Amino acid sequence: MISSISNIIYLTNYSGFSRDERETYLFITKNQQYVLTDARYSEDVKKLILDFKLIEISSKLSATEALKKLKLKHSIKKLGIEENDLKVNEYKTLKKCFEEMGNFNGIKTLRVIKSKNEILKIENACQLGDKTFAYILNRIKFGVSEKEIANEIEFFIKKQGDDISFSPIVAFGKNSAVPHHVPTNNQLTNNQIVLLDFGVKLNNYCSDMTRTVFFGSANAEFKKMYETVLHAQSRAIEILNTKYLIPNTKASVIDNAARDYIVSKGYPSIPHSLGHGIGIDVHEAPHISPNSKDILKQGMVFSIEPGIYLPNFGGVRIEDLVVLEKKGVRLLTHSPKNLIEI
Amino acid sequence: MISSISNIIYLTNYSGFSRDERETYLFITKNQQYVLTDARYSEDVKKLILDFKLIEISSKLSATEALKKLKLKHSIKKLGIEENDLKVNEYKTLKKCFEEMGNFNGIKTLRVIKSKNEILKIENACQLGDKTFAYILNRIKFGVSEKEIANEIEFFIKKQGDDISFSPIVAFGKNSAVPHHVPTNNQLTNNQIVLLDFGVKLNNYCSDMTRTVFFGSANAEFKKMYETVLHAQSRAIEILNTKYLIPNTKASVIDNAARDYIVSKGYPSIPHSLGHGIGIDVHEAPHISPNSKDILKQGMVFSIEPGIYLPNFGGVRIEDLVVLEKKGVRLLTHSPKNLIEI
Repeated sequence: MISSISNIIYLTNYSGFSRDERETYLFITKNQQYVLTDARYSEDVKKLILDFKLIEISSKLSATEALKKLKLKHSIKKLGIEENDLKVNEYKTLKKCFEEMGNFNGIKTLRVIKSKNEILKIENACQLGDKTFAYILNRIKFGVSEKEIANEIEFFIKKQGDDISFSPIVAFGKNSAVPHHVPTNNQLTNNQIVLLDFGVKLNNYCSDMTRTVFFGSANAEFKKMYETVLHAQSRAIEILNTKYLIPNTKASVIDNAARDYIVSKGYPSIPHSLGHGIGIDVHEAPHISPNSKDILKQGMVFSIEPGIYLPNFGGVRIEDLVVLEKKGVRLLTHSPKNLIEI
Repeated sequence: MISSISNIIYLTNYSGFSRDERETYLFITKNQQYVLTDARYSEDVKKLILDFKLIEISSKLSATEALKKLKLKHSIKKLGIEENDLKVNEYKTLKKCFEEMGNFNGIKTLRVIKSKNEILKIENACQLGDKTFAYILNRIKFGVSEKEIANEIEFFIKKQGDDISFSPIVAFGKNSAVPHHVPTNNQLTNNQIVLLDFGVKLNNYCSDMTRTVFFGSANAEFKKMYETVLHAQSRAIEILNTKYLIPNTKASVIDNAARDYIVSKGYPSIPHSLGHGIGIDVHEAPHISPNSKDILKQGMVFSIEPGIYLPNFGGVRIEDLVVLEKKGVRLLTHSPKNLIEI
């Protein structure tokens, strides 16, 4: 039984079901697949989800009753549930029908390796991300606030008919020292760092990128930080290129490469993972972190985003998405990475 | 143990914790209250959540370890958990520490009755909603698309520095016959219904309103529908005014009043509840529906939103928020309800 909305999108390619309220389950047996949902979605399910059979949930047929019937029909002995998604009250209800239940984590394993079609979708999202970055550079002006720039990013993306993959992070000056800064009404003044971290959601797939630019003339201290982060990223990509085709290469290898380089230059270690997988969710497997046990494989798509954060000074983060292909590592984001002074 | 983000906002008045990833729990004993969260939130918790003690979760102290310590310290025998929020994997982890657990639903009971301060916050959100409606009326023009109007609503609200409480519903023509229509690229043409349903989130509290206007000259059929819906709403408010101070009046009474009136005029019954409570969540208790067992009480805030939906013709819905006060029922939304032709 699949309850996670992202997994339902992955299996059905339909994203109309509510994320906020539980209205849909997938039920998959050896020979048959079902969508259990209410009448509001019936038309869409019949038209758009062709390889699943619709079971309409209503006041006459509760989800529990429908599951009981399916259990009998298919002689189900053990039910796989998504324990990291299902709520305790749902679990307790299911327990009344199914004596045996176990954790099912199989969709995560499928999702970590992207198909050509999925990679294309992420690439398209990245392309709009690059376009957004080019647009927003022209909006960075004296006196503009972090919130205004964050709104401009969001509105630009939504005007194309697409969605953001997460609320943009926009940080000026010292605020850039906080990796997950929430945009404020702080206004831009001369000689400040501008950190921009945002993503697009297009055809259900996410992009994610970060660029750090300087409003004014960057001083030597900032330039050194910037070059160090940029070099740490190049280093991670280099290591990745030489190692990812070697069987059983761990994701931790590239995290360490970037992290160690930053520390060797006298900066504090990166206070977050070097990267994260991306796809239908903006954060998914694999984990590119010091202790990650994930093994690098062809078809994986993830971010590489080293950063240096100095309290009371500011931060630099540079983030791109890459895909591991047969021929090598390929960048999916293409915005310039030379130090931009506005 | 409180895990629901909305309940955490209610108890702490702090809304900075992530909704997407589980990073925070509240733990409340007879004598002491704790926030368990990670270092990113430490500064905020210390500054802004004064009546809770911070326990910092990290790689050195997992949430489970922290809970074990609290259990010993406070000799906890039974843990109350929010079964409609907690995930199965979290539950199984807790089970290793706490022999006895039970469902705790107490915060919902508190939240259903709003304080003066909460009512003021909802009122402020409604005020911005009214302002948004006045603004958007001027944007309804030949050739504009549903998505464009939905974006204009969202951007207008966000430019004030506030948030939307849900994605706006904008439906033109026949699309208005679908109560939860998702805005499309369909463009407005002459003599079409325009249904607008949107809300503001301001200081953590939501508003919600619906107006249906006509682009062109409304014909008799539409006018009759409109008058019927408007009258059904007045009727519900009238019944509410005469009955809510009588002890044990059920919410279903006013749903029936509006519903029966619409059916008596030869229209199909409302295919949704007449209304829903609103506060930190856009949908919360009480439920104003035919089978609701909720009892009307002073301090409740909810929507009254009758509608008529005719497939292949269109729909009308009119939605306002009300608060039940000692002196009577008070409307919180004030946008005009005469039939507007643009």
